Order: sequence, then C-alpha cells, then structure tokens
Amino acid sequence: MAKRIVVALGGNAIVTKTGTAESQEESIKKTMESLVEFIKAGDEMVITHGNGPQVGNLLLQQAAGSTEKNPAMPLDTDGAMTQGEIGYWMENALDEVLAENGIEKTVATIVSQNEVSADDPRLKNPSKPIGPFYSKEEADAVKAAHPEFTFIEDAGRGYRRVVPSPKPIRMLEAPIVDAMLEKGMVPIAAGGGGVPVVKHGKGYKGVEAVIDKDFSAAKLAESVNADELIILTAVDNACINFNKPDQKALGEVTVDEMQRYIDEGQFAKGSMLPKVQACMSFVENRPEGRAIITSLDRVADLVAGKPGVGTIITK
Amino acid sequence: MAKRIVVALGGNAIVTKTGTAESQEESIKKTMESLVEFIKAGDEMVITHGNGPQVGNLLLQQAAGSTEKNPAMPLDTDGAMTQGEIGYWMENALDEVLAENGIEKTVATIVSQNEVSADDPRLKNPSKPIGPFYSKEEADAVKAAHPEFTFIEDAGRGYRRVVPSPKPIRMLEAPIVDAMLEKGMVPIAAGGGGVPVVKHGKGYKGVEAVIDKDFSAAKLAESVNADELIILTAVDNACINFNKPDQKALGEVTVDEMQRYIDEGQFAKGSMLPKVQACMSFVENRPEGRAIITSLDRVADLVAGKPGVGTIITK
Repeated sequence: MAKRIVVALGGNAIVTKTGTAESQEESIKKTMESLVEFIKAGDEMVITHGNGPQVGNLLLQQAAGSTEKNPAMPLDTDGAMTQGEIGYWMENALDEVLAENGIEKTVATIVSQNEVSADDPRLKNPSKPIGPFYSKEEADAVKAAHPEFTFIEDAGRGYRRVVPSPKPIRMLEAPIVDAMLEKGMVPIAAGGGGVPVVKHGKGYKGVEAVIDKDFSAAKLAESVNADELIILTAVDNACINFNKPDQKALGEVTVDEMQRYIDEGQFAKGSMLPKVQACMSFVENRPEGRAIITSLDRVADLVAGKPGVGTIITK
Repeated sequence: MAKRIVVALGGNAIVTKTGTAESQEESIKKTMESLVEFIKAGDEMVITHGNGPQVGNLLLQQAAGSTEKNPAMPLDTDGAMTQGEIGYWMENALDEVLAENGIEKTVATIVSQNEVSADDPRLKNPSKPIGPFYSKEEADAVKAAHPEFTFIEDAGRGYRRVVPSPKPIRMLEAPIVDAMLEKGMVPIAAGGGGVPVVKHGKGYKGVEAVIDKDFSAAKLAESVNADELIILTAVDNACINFNKPDQKALGEVTVDEMQRYIDEGQFAKGSMLPKVQACMSFVENRPEGRAIITSLDRVADLVAGKPGVGTIITK
C-alpha cells in the first residue's frame, strides 16, 4: 500500500571520518540505495537531514579565514549553505540510484526556512554547542567582536559558542514539497532543521539558532499530511533501560506509554529523547499517522512489511 | 499581457563593498523591490543569478581554514553552497517584498545541477580565474597537493587557479521549475550557473568548472518555454562602439544583426559578449520568444511597456 512518508536522516547517514566531499558523497550514495526501496514500493517520499558535522566544519573554516573584507557569515546563512551542500550531494546520489533502478523521477532540494516564534523561551536560553573550541583568551576575543554570542566552558575541552534551539512552527516552503509530491517528484527539504526565521516587518528575518532536525521533520510531515514519519538513526530501536542488563527494545508504543518512559528518564537528552518527542508530536497532530524510529539497515525489512522492525509510535 | 519570464541577475544585484551577509541581504531586498513589478503585472517569473563574488569569498575562507580533518570542498560543492546562501537571501527578501505588496506566493530555491558534455572542448581549456591570488611558491604548493589544478599568472598580481567554463545542456531539476510556475510559485534556480555535472555511470558526477550564468539562464528559459529571457546588468543597453564618441545604444535587434556586431568585435569578452550570445541562443531555440538586456533601474519602465527600454533581441 503506497504511503506518503517523510524520512529524517541523522548525521551518521552522511558524515565520514575523512570529511572530504568525495567520502561523504559515497556515504550518501549507500544511504540512497536503502531509501530507494520506499520509492520502489510506490511510496511518496520526502527526505530531510541533519547538518551538524557539516555546519561545524564550515564554521571552523570561516573562523580561520574571516577577514574584514571577507567576513564569516552568520549562522542562518551558514545553515543555508549546508542545505545547498548536502542537498546537492543527496539529489546527485539519488538521481543515480533511481537511474540504476530504472526509475525516472525528478529529485530536488528546496532551500528551506522554518518559522520560529520570537517569544519562544528557548530563544533566550542558548544551550546547543556549535563550531570550534576556543581557549579562554580566544573566546574573549570573539565575544568582544560579537557581544551577542554566548560561550560555555565545555568539560575541560575549552570554550564553545552555544546557540538556542527553538521549536519550528511552519516551513515557509512546504507548499512546494506538496506540489512536488503531487507530481511524483522527490523533495529534499528542511536540511539541518531549516533556517530558523522570526516574523520581522511583513516578512521574516533569520536568527542565529539551530532547529532540531527531528522536530522540523515532524512539523514538515504534519504540513504535507504524511502517513508516516520515519526517523533513521544509528540504532534499530528506541530502548528502555538502555545499556543496562535489562535493556529492552521498544516495538509498537502509544504516545501515553512513551510519555511514561520519558517521565522515567528513559531517553538521553540531545539523542533519543528529541526523536521520541518528535514522533509523539507528529502522531498527536496527525492521529491517523504513525512514526517509526529505526536504522538504515532495517529499511528493506520495513518496506517488506516484516513484523518487529523498529519502534513504532501511534496515538 | 502576462508572460512567463526568466530573469538573470548579475553580481551587481547582490554584492556589496563590505561583503557582510547583512549588506548583501539589503542589496537583494532592493533588487526584489524592482523584480516584484513583474509579478504585480501578472507575469510568471523564474529568478536566476550569478555567484562570482560569493564563491570567490568561500574559496578564500576554505583555503585559509582547510585542514586534514576538515578539507576544503571541491568547486562543484562550493557552487552548491553558494546556491543555498544566495538562494536563502533571495527567497527571504522576496517573501517580504511580496507580503509588503499584499501578494501571497510561495518562493523557493531549487539547488540545481546542469548537465555538460564530457566531450565539451571547453572542459579541456581552463580559462576562468577563480579564488585567491597566490605567490609562485604558494601556487606550487597548492599544485603539488592538487595536480589536477591549472594556474595562470594574472597580469603581475600573482598566480590564480583557472577552471573550465563548459556550455550547459540541460538543467536536471527543470521539471520542478515548470511545476512551480504552474502552481503560481516563484522559483529561484540555476544559481551561479548551476553545478556542472557530466554523465557518469547511470547518473552524473560534478566537475570542477563554472557555467556562465547567462548561458544557463538561456537554457533554463528554453526548457520552461519562457516568453522572455531578461538579463539584468549594470548598463541600460548593449552598445556598439562602446566608450567611443559614436557609442550607440542598441534597441530592437535581430539575431543576424547581432551576429554582424559580434563579427565586428563590438562586445567585450567575459562581459557583454556572453550576455548577447545567451540571448541569441534563447531566441534561436525559441523563435517566438524575445530576450532583453537592460538594468534593474529600467525594470519598472519595461513592465509598464514604455518604448525604447533595453536591448531587445528577436529571431
């Protein structure tokens, strides 16, 4: 049964040890060889992805190369740059994998902006570390040039800039994702969570923040009335009692059950917790939908309808 | 009478003296305040743009910040990054200008790949200078790390890398531009000429080259059956006897007349010549269309249908 799905890829589906473009392109090609199974099954697929390692590398290079005539870009622009970068790698790889499977489909990356609320309390509470580590002196120098930046001391490894991570309200370009799906095309959208923008005048203005890509995936899935949100990560399932002798992989779970596990502190902050919360948010807002957390390795089994694949969250 | 148009913006419509994101965003906002006139007149508009200064700045920063663990990206990836960067600035600015004019339209940037032929003789003749100036010693060091790079000595200012500038054959994502126009949306596409890709296996592979944005605009205009290709540049008209006492601005000109002027050497290489050639290519392939070269300042008069605006090339 063909479905409309939004697939969210973590950094592990892209990043490589060497960090070269070539190695990341190869890694993405393998990822697309898994994802094409959804298309072969007739599903309408939207791809979204993280950008943590790539935007981190860009920030490092800009910090090293910034001059008065050629200043480093702000974080909203950097996010858009990595959407172009990773989006190009992905569309190029999926074009090839589709052709290898004899499937004719147009793939394209939509440079995406995600509205966030200027009143979001998270905007006033920068907590997400990004970019290079600095010594105390370097951090003070950067802070002098950018008084708006916040730094924290990161567990003895040095000082690091932290930025807010607000919740997405609406992806401005979602109607295009919808239009592409209607035409049988494959959109890549909301890369790196999308550029966070707040209302400004009659339009919007970028803010130096990072939207969690799982939350933006959930919002996008809701906007395009997806049947499934599929979050692909390094593990096959969300687990309770993780890394303990009585660790248990979760199969089908309701939102209420998940909320109990969250209350018990079962999921790691900044890791499994946002994925679980994003899934819950999607099925809360789209009760007929379901959300799945699993690994790339299980995609073929998931498409084949094998029972027991992944953690499936329903209302 | 509503038309389907492709508008090509030169670097002068974006770049600023300071090079900051903020100043470039302001410059783009002003550009969009001119372009919105086409939309107010009911035209279907595609925007495309150059990326010379932006990709040059990115190359400089990457050269300064490249390390073994965080290597500089190849030129095809850098081009895609500037598509994200400039595309985000443009969609954000046009969103605001549309709202200020009470117009509801979705705008989005499509990260674009342009097929070029592996047999294009231009690929074997790198001629377009890009990125930083190097001393002889620096250029030799870069060349040792990248034997595939070509350097030239640039008129006493130092050594510079040169890359090929092949002709575009087909923008892979053109069907999305078409679909967006059908839905009344505004696509931004083929930024910086699009990423040049050659056939590779069953798909395509990026090449380190730069496609002239005027030629890619002409090819895009042809692909989406545009009525007009509008190339906006720093001058109101293409001129013959340029900068001489008998300088004459060209008004309506046929392809045959333009070819005579080209044969006379009337247009500067790398400046007005490719614009004129791109216009000729568009109307040759789409004889019912017309191509216009003018400045941003004349857009309002052009939309108002004032006679004598710009250089208009017809078959």
